[in-house]
Amino acid sequence: MTPDHSRSVPRRLRLGMVGGGPGGFIGAVHRIAARLDGRYELVAAALTSDAARSHAAAAELHVPRSYANFAEMAAGEAQRPDRIDAVAIVTPNNLHFAPAKAFLEAGIHVICDKPLTTTLSDARELAGIVQRTELIFGLTHNYTGYPMVRQAREMIRDGALGNIRVIQIEYAQDWLSTAVEATGQKQAVWRTDPARNGPAGALGDIGTHAFNIAAFVSGLACQEVAADLSSFVPGRRLDDNVNMLLRYEKNVRGMLWASQVAPGNDNHLALRVYGEKAGLAWCQERANELVFSPLGEPPRTIARNGAGSLAVAAHASRVPAGHPEGYLEGFTQLYTDLAEQIHARLEHRAPDSAALLVPGIDDGVAGMRFITAVLASSQNNSAWTAL
Amino acid sequence: MTPDHSRSVPRRLRLGMVGGGPGGFIGAVHRIAARLDGRYELVAAALTSDAARSHAAAAELHVPRSYANFAEMAAGEAQRPDRIDAVAIVTPNNLHFAPAKAFLEAGIHVICDKPLTTTLSDARELAGIVQRTELIFGLTHNYTGYPMVRQAREMIRDGALGNIRVIQIEYAQDWLSTAVEATGQKQAVWRTDPARNGPAGALGDIGTHAFNIAAFVSGLACQEVAADLSSFVPGRRLDDNVNMLLRYEKNVRGMLWASQVAPGNDNHLALRVYGEKAGLAWCQERANELVFSPLGEPPRTIARNGAGSLAVAAHASRVPAGHPEGYLEGFTQLYTDLAEQIHARLEHRAPDSAALLVPGIDDGVAGMRFITAVLASSQNNSAWTAL
Amino acid sequence: MTPDHSRSVPRRLRLGMVGGGPGGFIGAVHRIAARLDGRYELVAAALTSDAARSHAAAAELHVPRSYANFAEMAAGEAQRPDRIDAVAIVTPNNLHFAPAKAFLEAGIHVICDKPLTTTLSDARELAGIVQRTELIFGLTHNYTGYPMVRQAREMIRDGALGNIRVIQIEYAQDWLSTAVEATGQKQAVWRTDPARNGPAGALGDIGTHAFNIAAFVSGLACQEVAADLSSFVPGRRLDDNVNMLLRYEKNVRGMLWASQVAPGNDNHLALRVYGEKAGLAWCQERANELVFSPLGEPPRTIARNGAGSLAVAAHASRVPAGHPEGYLEGFTQLYTDLAEQIHARLEHRAPDSAALLVPGIDDGVAGMRFITAVLASSQNNSAWTAL
Amino acid sequence: MTPDHSRSVPRRLRLGMVGGGPGGFIGAVHRIAARLDGRYELVAAALTSDAARSHAAAAELHVPRSYANFAEMAAGEAQRPDRIDAVAIVTPNNLHFAPAKAFLEAGIHVICDKPLTTTLSDARELAGIVQRTELIFGLTHNYTGYPMVRQAREMIRDGALGNIRVIQIEYAQDWLSTAVEATGQKQAVWRTDPARNGPAGALGDIGTHAFNIAAFVSGLACQEVAADLSSFVPGRRLDDNVNMLLRYEKNVRGMLWASQVAPGNDNHLALRVYGEKAGLAWCQERANELVFSPLGEPPRTIARNGAGSLAVAAHASRVPAGHPEGYLEGFTQLYTDLAEQIHARLEHRAPDSAALLVPGIDDGVAGMRFITAVLASSQNNSAWTAL
Repeated sequence: MTPDHSRSVPRRLRLGMVGGGPGGFIGAVHRIAARLDGRYELVAAALTSDAARSHAAAAELHVPRSYANFAEMAAGEAQRPDRIDAVAIVTPNNLHFAPAKAFLEAGIHVICDKPLTTTLSDARELAGIVQRTELIFGLTHNYTGYPMVRQAREMIRDGALGNIRVIQIEYAQDWLSTAVEATGQKQAVWRTDPARNGPAGALGDIGTHAFNIAAFVSGLACQEVAADLSSFVPGRRLDDNVNMLLRYEKNVRGMLWASQVAPGNDNHLALRVYGEKAGLAWCQERANELVFSPLGEPPRTIARNGAGSLAVAAHASRVPAGHPEGYLEGFTQLYTDLAEQIHARLEHRAPDSAALLVPGIDDGVAGMRFITAVLASSQNNSAWTAL
Repeated sequence: MTPDHSRSVPRRLRLGMVGGGPGGFIGAVHRIAARLDGRYELVAAALTSDAARSHAAAAELHVPRSYANFAEMAAGEAQRPDRIDAVAIVTPNNLHFAPAKAFLEAGIHVICDKPLTTTLSDARELAGIVQRTELIFGLTHNYTGYPMVRQAREMIRDGALGNIRVIQIEYAQDWLSTAVEATGQKQAVWRTDPARNGPAGALGDIGTHAFNIAAFVSGLACQEVAADLSSFVPGRRLDDNVNMLLRYEKNVRGMLWASQVAPGNDNHLALRVYGEKAGLAWCQERANELVFSPLGEPPRTIARNGAGSLAVAAHASRVPAGHPEGYLEGFTQLYTDLAEQIHARLEHRAPDSAALLVPGIDDGVAGMRFITAVLASSQNNSAWTAL
Repeated sequence: MTPDHSRSVPRRLRLGMVGGGPGGFIGAVHRIAARLDGRYELVAAALTSDAARSHAAAAELHVPRSYANFAEMAAGEAQRPDRIDAVAIVTPNNLHFAPAKAFLEAGIHVICDKPLTTTLSDARELAGIVQRTELIFGLTHNYTGYPMVRQAREMIRDGALGNIRVIQIEYAQDWLSTAVEATGQKQAVWRTDPARNGPAGALGDIGTHAFNIAAFVSGLACQEVAADLSSFVPGRRLDDNVNMLLRYEKNVRGMLWASQVAPGNDNHLALRVYGEKAGLAWCQERANELVFSPLGEPPRTIARNGAGSLAVAAHASRVPAGHPEGYLEGFTQLYTDLAEQIHARLEHRAPDSAALLVPGIDDGVAGMRFITAVLASSQNNSAWTAL
Repeated sequence: MTPDHSRSVPRRLRLGMVGGGPGGFIGAVHRIAARLDGRYELVAAALTSDAARSHAAAAELHVPRSYANFAEMAAGEAQRPDRIDAVAIVTPNNLHFAPAKAFLEAGIHVICDKPLTTTLSDARELAGIVQRTELIFGLTHNYTGYPMVRQAREMIRDGALGNIRVIQIEYAQDWLSTAVEATGQKQAVWRTDPARNGPAGALGDIGTHAFNIAAFVSGLACQEVAADLSSFVPGRRLDDNVNMLLRYEKNVRGMLWASQVAPGNDNHLALRVYGEKAGLAWCQERANELVFSPLGEPPRTIARNGAGSLAVAAHASRVPAGHPEGYLEGFTQLYTDLAEQIHARLEHRAPDSAALLVPGIDDGVAGMRFITAVLASSQNNSAWTAL
């Protein structure tokens, strides 16, 4: 039941990267994700905001073509016959928009970290460009790459829950429980800096993931939010705890909690969806399991690639049940599915439909609408605010 | 480390019961709770609303003194030299107020099921009577009887979490996912009937437990709520799903979810409290464990009566760690602690301080203020509403 | 689906107790077990080996008839018109045989703690007396009183597993990891003393429980064992760790591990049974769950009294799914089922068949045969030894 | 605390592969493991036993140099200036010895799947060749690559458990519960065929992993075993269930259960080690957690790269705590550590000591001694048999 990831591998795509220099976290993750299934070769990069450091870092990583900055890279690659097939943008949030725009304008597919931008207007402008250029745009809401998340989505589409009633989402961490940004810790510094991170703290960093996965799995549009944001750590300029109520279409009710000040939580992303006929529960820290509870029957723990696991999960798996896959494999799946999309373009064919589940520009805009509405609601004493 | 529950047992108290006839759930639970630690003998009752059925039921249960109704019972017992020491009121919510008032006026201690009444004004009137008569009034928010809930409270009072920041409470069931009230199921019928249950459905039945346990453990007063109630099952007249945000004193933020339409949840009451220095997590379906997560240290799973378990937990335990205690023992603990309070009165001495943790009339009034505010908020499109 | 434990309660049986004085553990447990379902009244006792202390203890426990020793008690009760219906024997192992014999000879039903005796010949003699007197003899292998243990047994009898192949049993504790007996801790002192405990240490104390529950659930007879016993704590005279292989009838293979020197285990009794068609797993510390894994289907977690829970489990339950029951309720179930057996005798009727699952004298003899074979095997360098 | 896997990456090593053609499982795993950390490029292969199929498969996988068989490959590569740095041998067990010997004789480092060979004499011969050639020989007991397994080893070496007393190992699967080999399922066919798999069934396939991880973590040598093997599925020629007792040096006692007929177990490898001072528990299906239970303290759940996680775990990690890593990352770690060993040779320097934990030829011989002793014991009615 595991797909043979060995078979019929087309040529490796040429990947560029903007951002991801030494000391970062997500750049290294993107590089592994590009490499794990053997679908990409990293051949070009503008790794930091400083040319000399970028070149040194590129040499260490054996990236053959190093550029001083993303603008030079977009221009330079556009002219090459062996130009990159896609670029990965892994910079802080305030530096997503400009490179994304530049590479799209250069005719190059984009893989961009989330949240899409720091303002809704930027997001909309980018969406217009994507629409106009018809290029592929992948947004790395990586948790949608987990096999059992995709299975949950499929089961709901197949009607296993009947009409949905309630959605409970939570994403809790503890790494910002103290003022680590004051210690110079690089991740904390930019993520708590409005200038680089945008106006949403925990909301943008993890709240958007939580919101996205709920929409991905449920297939429902959120219509309004009532939010109460806090900054618990003295001196912190952005929110570090997010409480909110949600109203989805079709009268579905939800709650979302995102926190980076909850001791004992490393990376606790959990989703529960309840319908007329059944409930589903998934937790990222137990990613290989999906608990399905049909009303009136005992809960069933479906293992990735085990009994009851669907083709959509097998598509996103590499090894049999009981051999856990994790964060990197989920992240990889987005890259691998985007590779299929890109190859299909190169070969003028329709992509494998299973490869189309990667979040894209619309999800990016939805995320920015979410952030905007939540901030407005919180500033308006938690009044219900339309997305 | 386990207290010897055998030692030095004073005479069994004489208990009366109002309600609890055939087919009920909670009456049988109260009877076990009174019996388990050997502290009470059930000697008088008005078990149903029908005299003949009451007498038959009393005979079956070997209750020596059966009354036609609570009024006769209060009057009759008040005159006896061997009158009951306390009465347990286990009727539907709309029948708490009148018997509670009658027994208090008759000078008899009261053990009353929750929620206290169906209106805040009734609750306040009852509080006045309790204050005036100086009688003991226990409210069976039974989850406060669990040893590890008491330990969580104690740890927070001792400063193990530092200042609290975030409280997450949830109480989910699935037994009302369909219109079981239409099938005549007795529990469902009265709990979904505003006339008998009062205006709060899931809110009153389980939401008040959730609210109470959070206050009990955290020691914090809730100041305002923003609530969104739903009735998902067609034809249902009361709420079956409750979403809300909470603001506690000292800038603490909370969320509370109570649902009776969440398939896969039998009786999932869970509490998580996060402070500056640590987090605590407890779940009723794993009642013998308390997970304590000091920031920067691995989470510790403290077993009831095991390593790290405090005297306050041992007080509420009967057997060593690894020998699970459950719902009935937690319920019993309230009865046993109330027995100590009553005996102390009889003996003109101060009660064991560990026996004073039983919720009382003030918690009942607080619960009714909570219900009132939540209903008002929900009717006012989730506006923040003061308690 | 929960039986109404309120209905039609016959008169309380009169119970006597031998052993169970101050400082003991299991005596208090037996008293709660007798009381919890309201089926017994403790009216006579010989609580300690010292008459004065016995009388003082009886007074504290409000036991009306206190005897200087079990012999006086058996003789005295036998002559009373209101004599005890049954006696509970809760002394150290070396003091099971004599009182059991005395009360049986006096025509009184016996409830005896395990293991039955300290020698196989004593066990066989007792079995002969039970056979001759036709009295009821209950052996408190209390783990068989857990609802989901009984459900596991029922499912296997119903063929849910097909032919059984493999049985894995483990029972681990850590309380004897150091020489606590040297500190004078009462439980440790007698349980590590061959004179009082018999020749089997952990083997007798917990190994017999593990062996019994496997036989109870599987319905299979063990034919031979190959055992390797250890005493890890210096100076300890009895085994504190028991490793063994087992061969059951019908070519079933098993392993059993019992240890009292395994840090991190409070009272970890776990049973797994695997057949051609499915597996079953149960763990005492998660007693309300039974995991059923049909081959080729996702594992199902059956909650006590929840979906998929059988009548045999409901018989042994008091409250609905999600309201955990524990050690005391399991223990109680044996007492309650024995009460039904005794009442059926008094009423000259057949007992409820669900009340017949209580281990009896044959299980006691089987346990002694097990102990005897295991000790012989271990002394014979783990050679396979027939039971 | 996570090492930057981006930094200072030396050139990619040239890897060859013997076996691993279409339809296999482990070949694809080895390819991912070689690729994930970016340390190898697969440049040469003899993928199947048929030249034409091998060339086709190599073309699909973009392996530039395809050979008709391992002998041609060893000979061909040995003569090239850009010859492979190492070869991965991923054939069925009966085809480990000859290619391993050939490549070693050709001066090429070897990465070999387990068990090492099908006979102890072959294993010893290979060990002699490794000793003589001084080449690097890695044996892919991949579970030793898990960070928390390495942490467990380190904690034991640091004395966190004191003297070890008891080791419990189990490895259960269910995929051979029926005669799948009769359906032609490729994995099942060769693994149940003595000619290709050797004389040990579940024993060789998973029992050796279980044995190896216990030795790896405990640091103890097993001295003798008493084993009881079964073949439950009719017609099966090799064991599918393995029960055994073990005696380690220093009076440590153990039990090992390996089964491929245990429904509900996908790939349940679990190790528990108990010492005088503490216990450790790890389970492959929860690979990111290590439960450490100091005697007299509450158990602590140490998360990979979280609080309490050691440098030795960080060395084998890629992402922070709460971002699960799994089977492929553990497997990768062996490849990555072997890459460091090979580079150190190329650079005439000592390797990073953290990279030396990869099982090697001695572990392979130990595994064959284990298999040999277990088979002998089982054939000798479970008599204790020295390794």
